[in-house]
Amino acid sequence: MRASGELAELARKVLPRAAYEFYAAGSDEEISVGEAAAAWRGRRLLPRVLRDVSSVETGVDLLGTRLASPVLAGPTAFHRMAHDEGETATAAGVAAAGSLLVLSSRATRHPEDVAAVAGPWWYQVYWLRDAEITRRQVDRAVAAGARALVLTVDAPYVPPRATSGLPLPLPEDDELCRSVGIGTRLPGWEQDPSLGLDAIGRLHRMSGLPVLVKGVLRADDARACVAAGAAGLIVSNHGGRQLDRAVSSADALPAVAAAVGTEVPVLVDGGIRTGTDVLVALALGARAVLLGRPVVWSLALGGAAGVTTLLDSYRAQLATSMALAGCARLADIDGELLYGGP
Amino acid sequence: MRASGELAELARKVLPRAAYEFYAAGSDEEISVGEAAAAWRGRRLLPRVLRDVSSVETGVDLLGTRLASPVLAGPTAFHRMAHDEGETATAAGVAAAGSLLVLSSRATRHPEDVAAVAGPWWYQVYWLRDAEITRRQVDRAVAAGARALVLTVDAPYVPPRATSGLPLPLPEDDELCRSVGIGTRLPGWEQDPSLGLDAIGRLHRMSGLPVLVKGVLRADDARACVAAGAAGLIVSNHGGRQLDRAVSSADALPAVAAAVGTEVPVLVDGGIRTGTDVLVALALGARAVLLGRPVVWSLALGGAAGVTTLLDSYRAQLATSMALAGCARLADIDGELLYGGP
Amino acid sequence: MRASGELAELARKVLPRAAYEFYAAGSDEEISVGEAAAAWRGRRLLPRVLRDVSSVETGVDLLGTRLASPVLAGPTAFHRMAHDEGETATAAGVAAAGSLLVLSSRATRHPEDVAAVAGPWWYQVYWLRDAEITRRQVDRAVAAGARALVLTVDAPYVPPRATSGLPLPLPEDDELCRSVGIGTRLPGWEQDPSLGLDAIGRLHRMSGLPVLVKGVLRADDARACVAAGAAGLIVSNHGGRQLDRAVSSADALPAVAAAVGTEVPVLVDGGIRTGTDVLVALALGARAVLLGRPVVWSLALGGAAGVTTLLDSYRAQLATSMALAGCARLADIDGELLYGGP
Amino acid sequence: MRASGELAELARKVLPRAAYEFYAAGSDEEISVGEAAAAWRGRRLLPRVLRDVSSVETGVDLLGTRLASPVLAGPTAFHRMAHDEGETATAAGVAAAGSLLVLSSRATRHPEDVAAVAGPWWYQVYWLRDAEITRRQVDRAVAAGARALVLTVDAPYVPPRATSGLPLPLPEDDELCRSVGIGTRLPGWEQDPSLGLDAIGRLHRMSGLPVLVKGVLRADDARACVAAGAAGLIVSNHGGRQLDRAVSSADALPAVAAAVGTEVPVLVDGGIRTGTDVLVALALGARAVLLGRPVVWSLALGGAAGVTTLLDSYRAQLATSMALAGCARLADIDGELLYGGP
Repeated sequence: MRASGELAELARKVLPRAAYEFYAAGSDEEISVGEAAAAWRGRRLLPRVLRDVSSVETGVDLLGTRLASPVLAGPTAFHRMAHDEGETATAAGVAAAGSLLVLSSRATRHPEDVAAVAGPWWYQVYWLRDAEITRRQVDRAVAAGARALVLTVDAPYVPPRATSGLPLPLPEDDELCRSVGIGTRLPGWEQDPSLGLDAIGRLHRMSGLPVLVKGVLRADDARACVAAGAAGLIVSNHGGRQLDRAVSSADALPAVAAAVGTEVPVLVDGGIRTGTDVLVALALGARAVLLGRPVVWSLALGGAAGVTTLLDSYRAQLATSMALAGCARLADIDGELLYGGP
Repeated sequence: MRASGELAELARKVLPRAAYEFYAAGSDEEISVGEAAAAWRGRRLLPRVLRDVSSVETGVDLLGTRLASPVLAGPTAFHRMAHDEGETATAAGVAAAGSLLVLSSRATRHPEDVAAVAGPWWYQVYWLRDAEITRRQVDRAVAAGARALVLTVDAPYVPPRATSGLPLPLPEDDELCRSVGIGTRLPGWEQDPSLGLDAIGRLHRMSGLPVLVKGVLRADDARACVAAGAAGLIVSNHGGRQLDRAVSSADALPAVAAAVGTEVPVLVDGGIRTGTDVLVALALGARAVLLGRPVVWSLALGGAAGVTTLLDSYRAQLATSMALAGCARLADIDGELLYGGP
Repeated sequence: MRASGELAELARKVLPRAAYEFYAAGSDEEISVGEAAAAWRGRRLLPRVLRDVSSVETGVDLLGTRLASPVLAGPTAFHRMAHDEGETATAAGVAAAGSLLVLSSRATRHPEDVAAVAGPWWYQVYWLRDAEITRRQVDRAVAAGARALVLTVDAPYVPPRATSGLPLPLPEDDELCRSVGIGTRLPGWEQDPSLGLDAIGRLHRMSGLPVLVKGVLRADDARACVAAGAAGLIVSNHGGRQLDRAVSSADALPAVAAAVGTEVPVLVDGGIRTGTDVLVALALGARAVLLGRPVVWSLALGGAAGVTTLLDSYRAQLATSMALAGCARLADIDGELLYGGP
Repeated sequence: MRASGELAELARKVLPRAAYEFYAAGSDEEISVGEAAAAWRGRRLLPRVLRDVSSVETGVDLLGTRLASPVLAGPTAFHRMAHDEGETATAAGVAAAGSLLVLSSRATRHPEDVAAVAGPWWYQVYWLRDAEITRRQVDRAVAAGARALVLTVDAPYVPPRATSGLPLPLPEDDELCRSVGIGTRLPGWEQDPSLGLDAIGRLHRMSGLPVLVKGVLRADDARACVAAGAAGLIVSNHGGRQLDRAVSSADALPAVAAAVGTEVPVLVDGGIRTGTDVLVALALGARAVLLGRPVVWSLALGGAAGVTTLLDSYRAQLATSMALAGCARLADIDGELLYGGP
């Protein structure tokens, strides 16, 4: 498995500088983005021995969908900045790995085109000031076959990033790109900062789809979202791109998972860079994880095939780490695997 | 927002070396001055989501005065060393930002001149060996319109600093500068090391003004000061310029705030270098914060306008961080925002 | 006593690069291998004074065998890669120091040849997919005089190492070397990943020898192994060569020792690099320790004499540290010697 | 006050290399010697305010002797290696500062000569294998006017040091130097490793003097020594020159002080490098501190006057730190001055 730092470094060489920096950047002083990975790597494991690990099963059911492993492709914006084919290449790569894509509402390919080559996919959505735009986005995603919606709730405003503005290489006169906010800031496309818990139910009724809430870091928020109808939670600090100094998702996860129990699945993203990180995340209470930047780097480096290789390698290393930790099935992974507890 | 280290670095380039070092120095081994900022930066946040943050209000009432934000300009000495106009420029800059200036009794402009261009201001005072001097200073400040007094209590003696003596560029033959101790050490101008709790009441009776006590780091001292009539407390280790190895104000704040409750406002200074630091300070129990060196650097770099820009940028970043943390009002900020608690 | 880092550095200069890297490497990101030694070195001691330490006794009885000190030579593979004579030199060196060798089942000398020059020795064994091979290995070891078996249980699979494949200098056409898996991967020689607790009893019945279980890091596994008939436990993370990020053996030891009590001896390996580390290990609950890489480096540098010198120096430094800590006998070493407790 | 590192660096330049290394070295890996100072520097203070500190009193009564400050000159060997005059210069310098010298039994000047110029002094003693030598040493010290004995108990053996043997510059043919073991190892001069608690009483009866025990790091040992008649304890790890990885004296002090209470004075040495360190040591429960290497460096750099300057500067900085911490008398210093407690 290619080390994560190496992957980013290789991608930096093939991407236009502005594109690389757009993806790599965190907000403000880049504290949260800088420490995300270490929070997973810092945990130590207490492997079990003399368990039958002659076959290791990484498959998982997530909201009714069977996936090859609990490693998903999380929502990231503007894939045509990373690769000419953009999100269709990502989707094809994810499908080949038996995984699931969370398509960003800031995608630079039409959802119908993505759906045509995708396996199972969910659609990520911001609730915009012009709610009619949101409704149209959701309707279109539903029609195209999205199996669930992911409502991002940690971005009422966009804070200063280490890099300003959006990079050049995207076609600014492309109608789609404009529609997702590239090059120009269209009125109404800003996120609605007055959004409340009721958005979860409204989105569910609007779409008929299960709604996962992305960006939860607190136990009380987690419980409130579930009570408001969330079908799942994604523990996330938005890749360190929203509130800088937000706790790492690795540190936030245990309390959220404990608060939610098994009622709905708790997913997590942020700084997961190896299959062993996935094992740690599951031991801390996650049902699955999402990869952000690694998918973009792999897309940039190898297109659809690069994305498949990435997800396959995570799955393989997760399987090896599970076996060495004495876990034949995901259900064998629990907090007792962690030295010092979850 | 310009990073704090960058601000100091820019100021270093425009200030005479002795002036820069006078402001930058800490006492002895400069341990406390060196670790102040990290104590704020080290705290991690648990942002709330799905709160209505469509409008964020940073305004605060402090001892009856309404301010644009809980970010004040703390008392620092000898502003004419940093800028030709000295404290009048500072005061004008602070007023333009809707903030409050704590005028140092070691100011190098007459209080009446400062008052003429200032918004609301408080007057910082040392209780000197020659109490008559203190009385005259206080009378003059009261007459000029100070709204409160800030009694500095952590400086019974002046310890060795990393830089010795006072820098050259100040006019040593200027009567005012002499009066505040520049160039010569005038008899009676040393602080009275026998000062006790009763000074708080005496200062209040002398002036008719509320008296805040600056330099408190302990819960028991905090309670004693409030019992003795303090109208507010400022948690401070004097910018690391008095007892070296004094605990950072960030670490001292929670116990002081818990001891005092809501009886009187608890303010804090020391190493606050971003709007997010302000958010952390308020979550740890502060009602407002004071900036020391950043005001001096901004004054040196941009005069009154520089000071306004500084305070405006703190306010703006505080507002952004509040919104991203799900806090629409200052009252929404509490210890539960902090990972691991206050 | 030669510092451990120095020893490895000297060995690096005399060994073929591939051989050095084979021994030095850890798995994956080499986190566990990199932090093993620091976990011992980080503990601080509370020496006792005014005890009679005019004679210090380091001798220990281990499963009925008297040894000069509680420092054993642990099982490491392919000694002919380190020295032409291979395991016979190691065995002779260990015997001269009055210590015990745990002969690896991946040895590159026939067990009968090793036994001819060895003092007391145990035989390390993997339970292979082709159990008949394991039976033949065990029978041969029993016949040659092994006093106990060490069943390695932390290696159901071999994870990626920092170095790939096996080094060149070994004679690939040598029947013995082939038999232990060098150069080619023979069918059936892989470890059986379905192994369970019953293997302990089966191995005991097969051999008539006491069976120690090597690779235990958890208290619950320790209890289960003892209940299943283990005659001893070896706390180990396989030198950081199996599950990367497995807890250090120093951190795992106290809970295992507490769980097992005095029922069976608990041994430990991993990162023990000085006689004072041995003192710490015993204070944390170990009855004896095993050295891995230091034995290989000493073998490479000095053959049998090098191994003797190494073990003698550990014993001497242990005796000195015991005396300085007020411990005349191993039984005087307990958890109260450790600042902060075990 | 000259920084400690600077002092050692200056001494390194004037001393013969072997002499510098003899004094500077710790045992084995030099872990304990390397971390002693940081254990004091790492503690943070909670200064009190609004206390009357118009006069600060550093004077202390120690076993009936009044000293200018609680900073003593601890026992170190072979002062003629550092300065031609040796211990008489040290003693004169200590006396001029109103402090007390603990004269080492490895002194290179006759005790009568030292006594002639000394103020109050104690005599440090090892209990040697040839107890008759010890008796003669003690008798001579008593006759010369020693006010107490300091029995060093942490050195039953001399472990390997970073530097081997003794340096050259001492006159090897000098009878006195030979008698303290320089150049040759005389029979019977080794310390008696069978020494027990009863030595305290025997030494007291032999001399009629109070006996302090030096080298205690444990609470249980402290209580046992007091029960056996110790008139005082010195918490010490022998400057990191005996058991390497022994806990720092700063970390050991609180438990010892708590165990002993006010029954006998608890002193401490090791890594105390500033007057603020002294304040910390007293807050942690010490009644006084001893300086080792700084005295030697000052002796080498400035003879008697250098030693006086050193002790005066510690006293001055202690007084300043006390005042800034709100402590007018040593009795005002307690564990509540420490952030996080003692």
